[in-house]
Amino acid sequence: MLEEVLSDLGRAFAAGLLTGGAFVAMRGAALRSVNQYLHPSWWRGRRDSIHAERRLAAIVIVDVVGYSRLMNADEEGTHARLQNYRRTVIEPKIHEHRGRIVKNTGDGALIEFGSAVDAVRCALEMQQTMMVRNAGVQQTRRMDLRMAIGLGDVIVEPDDIYGHAVNLVARIEGLAGAGDICVSAEIWKLVRGTIAANFVDLGEAMLKNIADPVHVFAISPDF
Amino acid sequence: MLEEVLSDLGRAFAAGLLTGGAFVAMRGAALRSVNQYLHPSWWRGRRDSIHAERRLAAIVIVDVVGYSRLMNADEEGTHARLQNYRRTVIEPKIHEHRGRIVKNTGDGALIEFGSAVDAVRCALEMQQTMMVRNAGVQQTRRMDLRMAIGLGDVIVEPDDIYGHAVNLVARIEGLAGAGDICVSAEIWKLVRGTIAANFVDLGEAMLKNIADPVHVFAISPDF
Repeated sequence: MLEEVLSDLGRAFAAGLLTGGAFVAMRGAALRSVNQYLHPSWWRGRRDSIHAERRLAAIVIVDVVGYSRLMNADEEGTHARLQNYRRTVIEPKIHEHRGRIVKNTGDGALIEFGSAVDAVRCALEMQQTMMVRNAGVQQTRRMDLRMAIGLGDVIVEPDDIYGHAVNLVARIEGLAGAGDICVSAEIWKLVRGTIAANFVDLGEAMLKNIADPVHVFAISPDF
Repeated sequence: MLEEVLSDLGRAFAAGLLTGGAFVAMRGAALRSVNQYLHPSWWRGRRDSIHAERRLAAIVIVDVVGYSRLMNADEEGTHARLQNYRRTVIEPKIHEHRGRIVKNTGDGALIEFGSAVDAVRCALEMQQTMMVRNAGVQQTRRMDLRMAIGLGDVIVEPDDIYGHAVNLVARIEGLAGAGDICVSAEIWKLVRGTIAANFVDLGEAMLKNIADPVHVFAISPDF
């Protein structure tokens, strides 16, 4: 454990010396593990509370359908287009609806919202915007998003969230096709009285590594 | 709308004049609607955002079983004992588990937690503490709590929370007896993998003014 800390600190220090400002932008596991030792709240947290910090969250996973295929066909163009969508669609919409990007993955993001209603509204608006952007774009260059939303009582660490629900949402996303938003029944129950949208009951699905069947709904804009 | 505001203000003013301190303890719709007009952020909120601020919350309602009967038998003693329990059991436990008292009612409180796990742990510890306190107290002076917990995506105002879920939890509480904790199935799903406790499936209940049947579980300490 001490060795691990020292090695992480060493790596962080070296990186800091070598790259200056870039240290701030360092991402991934190394930084996370360094952060948790460096951050005063880590020590404080361990002393003060018996239990991990948790919070209720609507967890959204979004990614690009057929990203590998698109990258294969046009690496730089695909990358540039995804970065453009991130900056002009995904990030502004998340901000507008009070969400937080927990982390960017290669072809998408893990996002958390403090409200299920905010999460679903954001997903619907992102898909609507993508639909408009994609109108007229030729099939081979077209970038479609798929999304999944689930509810969790997640364990909160400074730079990440953990919990069964994160895995569950990743599995639900596997059911979504281009332009789709798939949500768990828990999310559906929380938003059905508030959001005017089309809800389609997809029934229960057995998902890999998830013990109980999961009841899933598809949500689409109500034009 | 203006008429509604003025009538609410009138009612509040009259109540204030007539009852003095009792105004603080006023419950129900009248006070809530007055609060929202009086608070400056109500006006500000309406200007700044398209959508109301919402958040996922585990909502806890706690109250004293047979409070009217106890007050009838011994008004000052009952009041003093409840205040004592508030100070030494209810408030410290809520604080310890990161909850927030939204408002005190005459004989209990409406509490919100950012995590379902925190809410259930807090309720279990409160009931365990009350059990110890009540050991040996004669039946006529004994003060028992009952609790209900539900999940909501509530609308947040500075001094209150609103939403279907608040009404739902109040109805679920009607099912709880002395020392009981009744929770909705949504809460049970969120905590069952994390908290070691006894969960008893009470089945579905039709509750007053709630359209769909509500699936309820009783939770008790796992000794």
